[in-house]
Amino acid sequence: MARKAYGQRCPVARTLELVGDRWTLLLVRDLLGGPRRFQDLQAGMPGLAPNILSDRLKLMEEHGLVGRRFYSDHPPRAEYTLTPKGQELGMVIGALAAWGSRHADTRAHLVDAESGQEVRLGYFRADTGERVSGRRVRVARRESAGPTPRARRPAPSPSART
Amino acid sequence: MARKAYGQRCPVARTLELVGDRWTLLLVRDLLGGPRRFQDLQAGMPGLAPNILSDRLKLMEEHGLVGRRFYSDHPPRAEYTLTPKGQELGMVIGALAAWGSRHADTRAHLVDAESGQEVRLGYFRADTGERVSGRRVRVARRESAGPTPRARRPAPSPSART
Repeated sequence: MARKAYGQRCPVARTLELVGDRWTLLLVRDLLGGPRRFQDLQAGMPGLAPNILSDRLKLMEEHGLVGRRFYSDHPPRAEYTLTPKGQELGMVIGALAAWGSRHADTRAHLVDAESGQEVRLGYFRADTGERVSGRRVRVARRESAGPTPRARRPAPSPSART
Repeated sequence: MARKAYGQRCPVARTLELVGDRWTLLLVRDLLGGPRRFQDLQAGMPGLAPNILSDRLKLMEEHGLVGRRFYSDHPPRAEYTLTPKGQELGMVIGALAAWGSRHADTRAHLVDAESGQEVRLGYFRADTGERVSGRRVRVARRESAGPTPRARRPAPSPSART
């Protein structure tokens, strides 16, 4: 079942409604490596019952995060691939991995596969590429085109010490 | 109750064990704006029962994500502040907000509060500051100091199209 709505007009809350269910982000993590068959995904998730995996994948498909392709008709067997929308969750996985490698699983670290050097996450301006401190980043709202601009919700700062 | 362990040696899974519970990341989001009293946090979360809020904050304190300070003894009233470890989750919130503003709440966007320009997230080499494509980013493991190096777990790629 989909995570119950938080009832908040906020891109963080709306995203968690789609991907905040137990297991969903771990499935995204595994699918970032390329297409996976149902049984591959299952083998990678000890503790995840097949019916729950099936439910999760169905929801992810409904939300446009994965595509499903049958590679066998008898018996029916499917493989799953992230859509571009699903692949963009890679940055969420990267942020979780970066934090975890500092605080929860400290033998892990994020590296650039080409140079072997450690990498970090950061913000940059879309127009100039200039780095921007997390303290300066805010969630803003594009105003409606109607005659009365909508009230702005207090915008939380997704700042980070990095 | 803490989210049941996923049983995986992976910085993404370990992080989700600490912060993947319903509401926890939304509390982090609100606390990124500065210290908040219990009733402020409650007011910002319609649908979150006080006993669940209390449980979440207790767990976040146990995990070293928030500190608690009493500003009144009679009646006892506390305010909560993110620790530096909790503040570093700002990048996870930023990644969720960035994805959500593209796919789930498209009136929102991330901006640099100083210039008003849109910002994006990316990976940077820690040594040179050079941008690195998400496709090149891997989770690696620091080897143990013992005589037999540990087997490497297949490292998922937290890549992203950005």
